Amino acid sequence: MKTHRDTAIQYARDHRSRFLEDVKDFLSIPSISTDPRHKADIQRAAEWVAQRLRELGAQDVAIMPTEGHPVVYGVIPATRSDAPTVLMYGHYDVQPPDPLDLWESPPFEPEVRGENLYARGAADMKGQIMAVLAAIESLLQSGEMPVTMKFLIEGEEEIGSRHLPSFLKAHKDLFACDFSLNADSGILGPDLPAITYALRGLAAFELRVYGPDHDLHSGIYGGVVHNPANALAALIAGMQDAHGRITLPGFYDRVRSLDEAERQELARLPIDETFWLKQTGVPALYGEPEFSPVERASLRPTLDVNGLHAGFSGEGIKTIIPSMATAKISSRLVPDQDPEEVYEQMKQYLEEHAPPTIRWELDYLAGAYPVIMDLNTPWMQALVDAMTRVWGKRPYFKPEGATVPIVGFMQRLLEVDSLMVGFILPDANLHAPNEKLHLPTWYRGIETYIHFLCNLGTS
Amino acid sequence: MKTHRDTAIQYARDHRSRFLEDVKDFLSIPSISTDPRHKADIQRAAEWVAQRLRELGAQDVAIMPTEGHPVVYGVIPATRSDAPTVLMYGHYDVQPPDPLDLWESPPFEPEVRGENLYARGAADMKGQIMAVLAAIESLLQSGEMPVTMKFLIEGEEEIGSRHLPSFLKAHKDLFACDFSLNADSGILGPDLPAITYALRGLAAFELRVYGPDHDLHSGIYGGVVHNPANALAALIAGMQDAHGRITLPGFYDRVRSLDEAERQELARLPIDETFWLKQTGVPALYGEPEFSPVERASLRPTLDVNGLHAGFSGEGIKTIIPSMATAKISSRLVPDQDPEEVYEQMKQYLEEHAPPTIRWELDYLAGAYPVIMDLNTPWMQALVDAMTRVWGKRPYFKPEGATVPIVGFMQRLLEVDSLMVGFILPDANLHAPNEKLHLPTWYRGIETYIHFLCNLGTS
Repeated sequence: MKTHRDTAIQYARDHRSRFLEDVKDFLSIPSISTDPRHKADIQRAAEWVAQRLRELGAQDVAIMPTEGHPVVYGVIPATRSDAPTVLMYGHYDVQPPDPLDLWESPPFEPEVRGENLYARGAADMKGQIMAVLAAIESLLQSGEMPVTMKFLIEGEEEIGSRHLPSFLKAHKDLFACDFSLNADSGILGPDLPAITYALRGLAAFELRVYGPDHDLHSGIYGGVVHNPANALAALIAGMQDAHGRITLPGFYDRVRSLDEAERQELARLPIDETFWLKQTGVPALYGEPEFSPVERASLRPTLDVNGLHAGFSGEGIKTIIPSMATAKISSRLVPDQDPEEVYEQMKQYLEEHAPPTIRWELDYLAGAYPVIMDLNTPWMQALVDAMTRVWGKRPYFKPEGATVPIVGFMQRLLEVDSLMVGFILPDANLHAPNEKLHLPTWYRGIETYIHFLCNLGTS
Repeated sequence: MKTHRDTAIQYARDHRSRFLEDVKDFLSIPSISTDPRHKADIQRAAEWVAQRLRELGAQDVAIMPTEGHPVVYGVIPATRSDAPTVLMYGHYDVQPPDPLDLWESPPFEPEVRGENLYARGAADMKGQIMAVLAAIESLLQSGEMPVTMKFLIEGEEEIGSRHLPSFLKAHKDLFACDFSLNADSGILGPDLPAITYALRGLAAFELRVYGPDHDLHSGIYGGVVHNPANALAALIAGMQDAHGRITLPGFYDRVRSLDEAERQELARLPIDETFWLKQTGVPALYGEPEFSPVERASLRPTLDVNGLHAGFSGEGIKTIIPSMATAKISSRLVPDQDPEEVYEQMKQYLEEHAPPTIRWELDYLAGAYPVIMDLNTPWMQALVDAMTRVWGKRPYFKPEGATVPIVGFMQRLLEVDSLMVGFILPDANLHAPNEKLHLPTWYRGIETYIHFLCNLGTS
């Protein structure tokens, strides 16, 4: 007997070209959120999403205003009343396409070349949204919607989702769900299915060191006055040992140690030293020797100077003792570190190490909590099974070194976990010219979503 | 019996108002060397000096072209053929007067208020030149010129004397002399005569640290890639200990130790901690605890970061690992350090301490040799005696923390020592609005030059 699942998969296979036309239509709207000149396109993209949800049969579809660009909301009820509720997160805005002259086809005239669809937003993330919608359409056509699906499609992800937290706070009940499906993730290669199960957090600071009350002549005052640029260098240097291990007091107290099973899982990842060397052009890799590069880049915390500024920067030399020196410093955090605790640790370090010959100020610029997903939730199990069915092998489990603040917002403001899902490839040219969506992988993605949703419904 | 010396002193006292009128005339020419719009004024000032030398009876007076502004040359022969030859160094150019609105009287309309003459160049150094010329006029009028005086009055001191080295090289024979009198110095107060007997040298570098071949996302690559800004901070921090003692290999090998007599002389100087704190606004003084502030600011070498630049400097945070980081670093040197050796020491330090995870480049931007004057030369003795006669007390001996490159040029290119002489006060507002010449001190200066030159002639 043919199941709803089988029928849905067959429908998805039969309608690939129509799904592709839908994506191309969506991609032709230049919904660039950074650029006020594209405000009408932003509105147009929101309306496009709302219309598509209505066509699918979604209820309560609304373009909800925020302090910035609007959020598109809608809900598609499950066939059975005891089904779980999933909140799909996505964004309809895209990065600017510059530099335009490096595009082989215009960024907002989607074009298929070979196995790829080229356009700004093809991978990040209009194509990803449309994979979910294609899966839902296929399920609805099969006669069975296994979950209740709510949608939160925002228009400000590329500008830091700046108005989303207050929006979530104001609409907590509307977005109530069992978990959030963040559809903005990727896999490791066409034949390397993967699930992102951890994200690093962030604590970012500005440290200002003040010396004399004006720039001084280094000949007249050198030797008597502590140069704030030298003092800043010493303070920064003291924050780490030679291998990058961070010396802030208590910094590692909450850092989870890696267990052997996890390390074995990470060792399976097809990412070796050569990969990192090639991507970065550095003469040699860096970091704690007792951890592998993959571990260091995702499950170990960091401390990086993002900016350093003091004194004279012109041609030649100007022999001054500058009156101040500034560093932007940020730390990537891992479970279970707390960004505000790290701020306190940084302050304590400075109180203990800053010499009495200078003054300093520390500002807390940004913070985001690290995330690690429970591999034993029903939704994680449903995803693993779905990927295994489509690819014929178990997915890799990949911790991500970067920070996805929206996942933290969902956790803190809606009190729900997120599942990172998505099918973009590492070479998708995100934020770069010739952004592309690999279509064979995208089709597999649609089928993965069908299995995933069916698994949730029957679990 | 009245000596030539007595006659000259009397002449100088009788002609103070005429000397003052001469200075005011010279000061009315806005000979600003930095500003091409004042090129004609530069020429006019050079002609003014040449004319004044001719009026004094100088021979071979010439306005000699350089690659930049001209040098005024002339020679006034001694009465006796066995007299020493002195090369007077000065400059007829001045700093720009900005900000104009802070001047109480126009900068090029010299005005006497109280005991001071106010004008741009009054102290730096048209007044100083005219003190020497007034002394020579007084001596000539007395019927005895005790030394042969050559003049080298340049027009580019305020723009780094940039064409002087090649000019000196080309005219080495013309400027042959027993020693050079650099008339651009000062004393500690109206009643605090002082002689500058040491100058620090300089070695200035640009250090560039290179990491990845482009700015990287600190989330994706943090932990695997050595951040060049962190690496630069560690390299700079390692160049000094907590008290500013420099760790470059061999750095102190040539540094002269201070003997007890010299330290006692320095302890006499009326400069205490309060002076430094007030001048700089720092919360506490810095430096090697085994040396006094005066010693640290003049007879001990330094290492100061003059500029520090990497990555992002805008508002907020941009979480990158910058591809490079740059520091401008300069070291004030003391006898007998050699700037090119210090460059080699810096290179050696970097070779030994730079980690294999980054690349670096070091540029040598500028160098100047430190100078210490022999206190036992006939000319130094002649100056001490002259000051003691005029002030009624022995002068202080003051080492200067700053660098006067012209003294090094004289040493290396003409192979002559310099004697730093001059009568400007610490509050003369050099390079600032309301620059002033303290007239009672200036008159004492003229008499000091008369005694000094007489002492040289009879030695």
